[in-house]
Amino acid sequence: MKRSAFFISDGTGITAEGIGTSLLAQFESIEFDKITLPYIDSIEKARETVAKINKSAMNDNEKPIVIDTIVDADIRSEIAKANAVTIDIFGTFMGLLENELHTKSTHIVGKSHAINTASRTYERRMEAVNFALDNDDGARTRYYNEADIIVVGVSRSGKTPTCIYLALQYGIKAANYPITEDDIDDQKLPAPLKVHKNKIFGLTIEPERLSLIRNERRPNSRYASIKQCNYEVEEVELMYRRERIPYLNTTDYSVEEIATRILLETGIERRVK
Amino acid sequence: MKRSAFFISDGTGITAEGIGTSLLAQFESIEFDKITLPYIDSIEKARETVAKINKSAMNDNEKPIVIDTIVDADIRSEIAKANAVTIDIFGTFMGLLENELHTKSTHIVGKSHAINTASRTYERRMEAVNFALDNDDGARTRYYNEADIIVVGVSRSGKTPTCIYLALQYGIKAANYPITEDDIDDQKLPAPLKVHKNKIFGLTIEPERLSLIRNERRPNSRYASIKQCNYEVEEVELMYRRERIPYLNTTDYSVEEIATRILLETGIERRVK
Repeated sequence: MKRSAFFISDGTGITAEGIGTSLLAQFESIEFDKITLPYIDSIEKARETVAKINKSAMNDNEKPIVIDTIVDADIRSEIAKANAVTIDIFGTFMGLLENELHTKSTHIVGKSHAINTASRTYERRMEAVNFALDNDDGARTRYYNEADIIVVGVSRSGKTPTCIYLALQYGIKAANYPITEDDIDDQKLPAPLKVHKNKIFGLTIEPERLSLIRNERRPNSRYASIKQCNYEVEEVELMYRRERIPYLNTTDYSVEEIATRILLETGIERRVK
Repeated sequence: MKRSAFFISDGTGITAEGIGTSLLAQFESIEFDKITLPYIDSIEKARETVAKINKSAMNDNEKPIVIDTIVDADIRSEIAKANAVTIDIFGTFMGLLENELHTKSTHIVGKSHAINTASRTYERRMEAVNFALDNDDGARTRYYNEADIIVVGVSRSGKTPTCIYLALQYGIKAANYPITEDDIDDQKLPAPLKVHKNKIFGLTIEPERLSLIRNERRPNSRYASIKQCNYEVEEVELMYRRERIPYLNTTDYSVEEIATRILLETGIERRVK
């Protein structure tokens, strides 16, 4: 059984998609054909959208599920005409909020993005992304005094995407430094990290998963062997415990989860809200 | 007037934050003190959360706004005991969806993330992020046959963050190539781009904004001067039109908006949904 699901927004559609995916994930037995329609910001586009939805309804012989985060009431009313089960986020909750806040909402389209385009916010995020790229993989260590966090871990344990996500989503300046076999053999924290020990956060990963990931990069290498992965992971975890570095096992987590769990554990403040 | 707003989730909190920010952005006259509480996945944590909310209510002398995307009904009921105005996403819509889909929801915590952790999805995103980093800023052009898109533009027009976001959010393999003054003087498309012309997407930006951004990187340089920015932007836009390259002015857009607009305009298919 397949059902069509439309995520409709006057902006990027990222919020509508987030809610929709969350809700529909609760019905595992049903396969959904998910369609995101962003920037539906005029009556004309709304009418085209209704036509698309109705076509799906006919083809599926079932009402599509529609999740919309459109701000403008007129555009929403147009969407509501579709032959669909509609989850209308603004329509459902705006009245409640207006009553409680004793204020009419401004109904301004384009205000509904999770991250606004206000110049300072944008600049902070871009600054942070550039910082993450410039200070990736231990490439440069002399700016660690500017870093909010220094993520460490063995090769391919998820440092780079974590740092980039922390930068993009939260404006956090995250550097990362790879723990190599040499560092492990030395039995001590690499010199560039020592002076910034309070900023360090460790990542670890199950050796089996690490071996799989490394095999994609360098198939059948010593680097990717389960023996080597076992050794590095065991040693790096010993180092974290010995040096009292907080750490997280990333095996079962998405990048978003790793980033938000680091925020939670370290209490680092976001630079954009 | 200041009101506390809590975004509460059993997962990362990113969806709750997205909805909450969208809704509250409609009340511009009110300043909200926004607090995200992720990973509220037990009755005990819910009770601690209620205590926090009640404390805010007392301090503010106003009921806080609570937006929650918690899946588990028992944890939700606990949260509902707080002295707050609660917007309960799952509670509000789950019944409607269960009726319509003739299926009980599975109520599994951790299913509610916008991006799931299924291994293949994770790998696609990581592959794409690595591709974006390896093929950033024209560093390498020999893998352009693997690219889904090649983003071009003058220095600091937003290419890198756009490519990284396309990779992280949608698993799209995005390379980027800078259009330099030399390319402009040549009056033709750089050689590495020619063979992949159908994959090229251009970014442009208002010269004033470009000059501001470049001044942060290299203050008072020729590179950052308004004259130079004017010249480069004018010429690159001419190139886009002459070569019939689709392009977007990024001045007023967030990274998310640039990325989703590119998807919409090019029709490129996402590799993760």
